[in-house]
Amino acid sequence: MGETSQLIIKSMEQKESNYIFGMHPLLEALESNRKIEKVMVRQGAVEGNMFGMLLEKLRQRDIQVQFVPMERLNQITRANHQGVIAFLPQIEYISLEQIVEGANGRESSFILILDGISDVRNFGAIARSAECAGADGIIIPAKGSAAVNSDSVKTSAGALMRIPVCKVTNIREAIYYLKQSGFSIVSASEKATDLIYTADFTKPTAVIVGSEEKGISKSALELSDRLVKVPMVGKISSLNVSVAASVVMFEIVRQRSGEKIL
Amino acid sequence: MGETSQLIIKSMEQKESNYIFGMHPLLEALESNRKIEKVMVRQGAVEGNMFGMLLEKLRQRDIQVQFVPMERLNQITRANHQGVIAFLPQIEYISLEQIVEGANGRESSFILILDGISDVRNFGAIARSAECAGADGIIIPAKGSAAVNSDSVKTSAGALMRIPVCKVTNIREAIYYLKQSGFSIVSASEKATDLIYTADFTKPTAVIVGSEEKGISKSALELSDRLVKVPMVGKISSLNVSVAASVVMFEIVRQRSGEKIL
Repeated sequence: MGETSQLIIKSMEQKESNYIFGMHPLLEALESNRKIEKVMVRQGAVEGNMFGMLLEKLRQRDIQVQFVPMERLNQITRANHQGVIAFLPQIEYISLEQIVEGANGRESSFILILDGISDVRNFGAIARSAECAGADGIIIPAKGSAAVNSDSVKTSAGALMRIPVCKVTNIREAIYYLKQSGFSIVSASEKATDLIYTADFTKPTAVIVGSEEKGISKSALELSDRLVKVPMVGKISSLNVSVAASVVMFEIVRQRSGEKIL
Repeated sequence: MGETSQLIIKSMEQKESNYIFGMHPLLEALESNRKIEKVMVRQGAVEGNMFGMLLEKLRQRDIQVQFVPMERLNQITRANHQGVIAFLPQIEYISLEQIVEGANGRESSFILILDGISDVRNFGAIARSAECAGADGIIIPAKGSAAVNSDSVKTSAGALMRIPVCKVTNIREAIYYLKQSGFSIVSASEKATDLIYTADFTKPTAVIVGSEEKGISKSALELSDRLVKVPMVGKISSLNVSVAASVVMFEIVRQRSGEKIL
């Protein structure tokens, strides 16, 4: 009971992020099903029942755990954090079902799947374009994605506060669900032979964009109905991932705009 | 004569940029028509014949002069810079005539005009997309543009080293010249009523993209044959300028790709 009063949520001045620190406050937050983005735990914190129990609970709820040096934790707060700091989400994530439900209401829906975009600026830039292109939502994996933090929100020009974002623990399962819900799955990959113009984007579509380094994962590619690429005319042949994603999304807009095409 | 030996060109470790410092070395560089990107002069440096003569020579050659605090100059070099540091261009700029000549060799040429893009990252990102979209060159105004420096070159993924860049002292005159050379001038502006798809990009085209804050200058707009915009479906209605430019450039690629359009 006494611990509850220690559940102090502080606003970080630099990062505009909210966090909870201390072992008991965090356990209570987990108990009350509070949403948690990720937890930083001091390196070497394996001894003792308390830590073991905490890590087990975090594992069960699929919350990302990051082991960091004590100094990193001290940089975030000078209070007695006991080696654990939990970050609360900046936005309200919605479920895959909710995104699909929202999208189904519209005749021409489209959803963006970011298969491991890890750079916060790229993530923010893509979200900004997605909002401008009228995407119904963005799906990201719970692990290995750039965080929704003040940097990505800023780069998104606030779009991350407007566009529905869904975190899924398994991208493959999410794609299955989208297929079952009537979505055509189109992967945008440099390795494709067909150009983006050959895809029929007039029907409900989920577009997959891969990570900066690894591209789209093999399992996601396998589930795709089409593999298309942005045409490259120059010699460097490498568009920034946020630009490539934007060009694909605006091809969707073009096909749906009904404008006279030359 | 003795001063010539002082014409020391040093590579800045952090910025990978080349510069010349000291009054006499700079005057000699000007005498020998060495290309200079811009000159930093210490604030208050107006007294004396030497500075007056230097500033006059710089004005005559239309070289950008930036008055900065002494500390800024000391950060760049600890050597005896005498209050002047001149930066050498990272790339070889080419003339407007050369860009047009190169473009005319191709059936479907297109040139990008950046009317005052001031952010180096945006500049680099646009150059990267321009190279990938096969632009024949980029025209920038000599004053008020983001510099071709290590930051913009890095963001461009090296594209700024490949794509011809032309600095013009007067954008309006450059547009005139392009019109006379048979280019259609298309301004990409949020204020347009027509969508980008309505422009005929199959003929030689120069696309104008405006600055982040002010958009396209009035005089450039007046000389444009068409004013078009990227369609906005969302609510924030503001694409990043590099994304907007990329979407327009890849609409050009689409129209010229001859792909079957749905």
